[in-house]
Amino acid sequence: MLKKKQDISFFFNPKSIAVIGASPMPGKLSYVILENLKKAGFLGAIYPVNPKYSSINNLRCYKSITETNDNIDIAVIVLPAPVVAESLKSAGKKVKGAIIVSGGFKEIGDEGVRLEEEIKKIAEKNGIRIMGPNCMGIYDTISRVDTFLITSDRIGRPNKGGISIISQSGSFAGTIMDELAYEGIGVARVISYGNRVDVGETDCLEFLAGDGATKIIALYIESVDDGRRFVDAASRCTRKKPVIAVKVGKRGAGVYAARSHTGAMAGRHEIYSAAFKKAGIIEVAGYEGLKDACRVLNVYKLSKGKRVLIITDGGGIGVSISDACENSGLEVTGLSDDVRKSLTSKLPHFCAVGNPIDLTGSVTDEYYITALKEGLKDKFDIVIAAVLWGPPQLTERLVDKLIGFKTKHNIPIVICSPGGKFTKKINSIFEGKGIPVFSTPESAVRAATILAS
Amino acid sequence: MLKKKQDISFFFNPKSIAVIGASPMPGKLSYVILENLKKAGFLGAIYPVNPKYSSINNLRCYKSITETNDNIDIAVIVLPAPVVAESLKSAGKKVKGAIIVSGGFKEIGDEGVRLEEEIKKIAEKNGIRIMGPNCMGIYDTISRVDTFLITSDRIGRPNKGGISIISQSGSFAGTIMDELAYEGIGVARVISYGNRVDVGETDCLEFLAGDGATKIIALYIESVDDGRRFVDAASRCTRKKPVIAVKVGKRGAGVYAARSHTGAMAGRHEIYSAAFKKAGIIEVAGYEGLKDACRVLNVYKLSKGKRVLIITDGGGIGVSISDACENSGLEVTGLSDDVRKSLTSKLPHFCAVGNPIDLTGSVTDEYYITALKEGLKDKFDIVIAAVLWGPPQLTERLVDKLIGFKTKHNIPIVICSPGGKFTKKINSIFEGKGIPVFSTPESAVRAATILAS
Repeated sequence: MLKKKQDISFFFNPKSIAVIGASPMPGKLSYVILENLKKAGFLGAIYPVNPKYSSINNLRCYKSITETNDNIDIAVIVLPAPVVAESLKSAGKKVKGAIIVSGGFKEIGDEGVRLEEEIKKIAEKNGIRIMGPNCMGIYDTISRVDTFLITSDRIGRPNKGGISIISQSGSFAGTIMDELAYEGIGVARVISYGNRVDVGETDCLEFLAGDGATKIIALYIESVDDGRRFVDAASRCTRKKPVIAVKVGKRGAGVYAARSHTGAMAGRHEIYSAAFKKAGIIEVAGYEGLKDACRVLNVYKLSKGKRVLIITDGGGIGVSISDACENSGLEVTGLSDDVRKSLTSKLPHFCAVGNPIDLTGSVTDEYYITALKEGLKDKFDIVIAAVLWGPPQLTERLVDKLIGFKTKHNIPIVICSPGGKFTKKINSIFEGKGIPVFSTPESAVRAATILAS
Repeated sequence: MLKKKQDISFFFNPKSIAVIGASPMPGKLSYVILENLKKAGFLGAIYPVNPKYSSINNLRCYKSITETNDNIDIAVIVLPAPVVAESLKSAGKKVKGAIIVSGGFKEIGDEGVRLEEEIKKIAEKNGIRIMGPNCMGIYDTISRVDTFLITSDRIGRPNKGGISIISQSGSFAGTIMDELAYEGIGVARVISYGNRVDVGETDCLEFLAGDGATKIIALYIESVDDGRRFVDAASRCTRKKPVIAVKVGKRGAGVYAARSHTGAMAGRHEIYSAAFKKAGIIEVAGYEGLKDACRVLNVYKLSKGKRVLIITDGGGIGVSISDACENSGLEVTGLSDDVRKSLTSKLPHFCAVGNPIDLTGSVTDEYYITALKEGLKDKFDIVIAAVLWGPPQLTERLVDKLIGFKTKHNIPIVICSPGGKFTKKINSIFEGKGIPVFSTPESAVRAATILAS
């Protein structure tokens, strides 16, 4: 057995990184990794290793890892699967951890399983912690490490922020990262651990639990390695910060697909759901849920309860949101008589005073603020403001008014604005000010459901 | 009783439109309607009616509708609720149909109910068909009628196309319209009928069933007026063209919200679902489903079966799609031995040959075409191609290759590409060529589910 409980924090604070199988050819993955490390601004030593070259891009290239004078914190291995074991052997005890990005292991069948077993043995013998194989490794805005083997023009790199992502799937991690970058949402650490011969979700959770830079954890898993240890670690983690998880490979086709992806045995979904619940993990149904969770938790804290006040100027959208809330266990509770009376006296007669509060197409900016002020005299935990921008008397000024209100009253206001050109222009103003806008009733409710978890 | 079964086609082919309560003031709704009618290019006669003015924007303004020499096909009534009845009375038998956009009726309670009853009686007596009150009326790219009271800079107007929308909610109709305009998807007729004192979903379905311009019908309803008649009309309609419906006001909060929106008694959702099924209507869960349906049916026909082939270069996304397919009743059936063998011989060894076919991050454009050609030798009804654009050897040329393949082989290929800047650039190339791209696994599967309905 590998020493699973050993600390893996050196992966997130390395002083030296070797790239085994480095290449000076721009088309090669190992070249991309060297470039990305530079672009990320990694401040430690970088050692390209390849017997064929003496220098790559102004860096001395080493014939073998033993030739370097330094101890290596991370060796990124970009070699064909059959020679990976050999490279670990030659590294001896010089290397603390290896990120094996190469594919061609358990995910391709028997021969790959054998290669993985070999790697496991050598790593254990030499005391090397392994991330991968068949992974992207680490994108880290704190340590400035970037081993993702895709150029940043294809997959954007988010700025520094509070979200950390743990993903068995590299493409899933990369895609979410790309979306967050596009939306201007920052991350702390993104970890893709692939086939998990050693480092897995639980090691990462344990590290991120104590990581000051990480405020929120998003987890994509196809399977869990050691259920009991996972629940223990996750329970400790969720006491400190929210952990959102999507478990894929749920049943039938998905289970099959997961096996041929990272060789994971996906297992019965109900067992996972129960374990998540026990550990205080917020489970989301899929990609959309994980994305919505990242967007909303980047701005708002978890709320204490499930009571949602819906304010809108579009009746049909209000009904749709009520439906979706009802469907996901949120409480769209009615207004008290007092609040109803004061709203009736302060809003024009054509507004529908209830929950939702429907301000109708004759709405002005100020109606929204009145509805918020009065409506929140009843104890609601979350507001969904479904602002349709058709009504002519709604102006851009509402953006700052809503943001001001949320800040002053410290209440999460989930903005829902579906629509076309004009709406998207306003939405980008919100987002420029750091407030996410959800462009369908369903996504707004997914976000509110996360907050109420 | 109103003569419900009377033909309402004159609403969609009017020769003359009067705007009752017309105003020369740009802030007023009636002014917006006059402007929109002009912008839409309505070729018939337009009669502004308002005793206060003698002309509005170079059109003669009439003191009353009786002053016009013409018979009026549509009178758009933009007056305060309490005087609407009076205006219908004075119209006498000169008017075939009225679109009452004014709010302040059943949706606001007892007094509104009384006003509505009055309108009903007068309309019946004078043989006037009524659309509304509390509605947007008609946006029609064939007859060039536009009674939506919102300017096109706020709510975009789609070009001519095959989708027709029937919506109880005006804001829902406007928002979907705005989204379709933004995506370059065309519509035939958009109808918002609001409180339904007379014309409702069934009249509209009956008209659209025989309407050559309408290829697909999207329906938003809070309640149905006459269940049996609705099912009969819808059954006739679905034999000719697909009808998609979202029923809101499902339970609890949603039911309450629907009542205060258009005064509709929403009723038990299960009854609606059963009726939809009986009538051959494809039910979607909400706004997202309706939007996805419009996008995919704008390009693809309903398929004969439910068998889905998933092809991807991102394993995790492939697993997510498999899960979502499984969840919505699609069949992700395995490949036959023959197809598996030929794929194994034609694709590199690192590809996972199954369903999904995972081409991995080493994918090239050509792998996708190989996977399609070979994979479709097994009988699949729909392909979901989840193209992640990270891999460096994928190029823009794949767009035309995929479109060419779909055209040649007449198979619906649902493209799923989540991601940031680079991905969105490629997606817009697809969409410029009329092919929708779905940006989450879930939305792609919603679209495939519609096709398989």
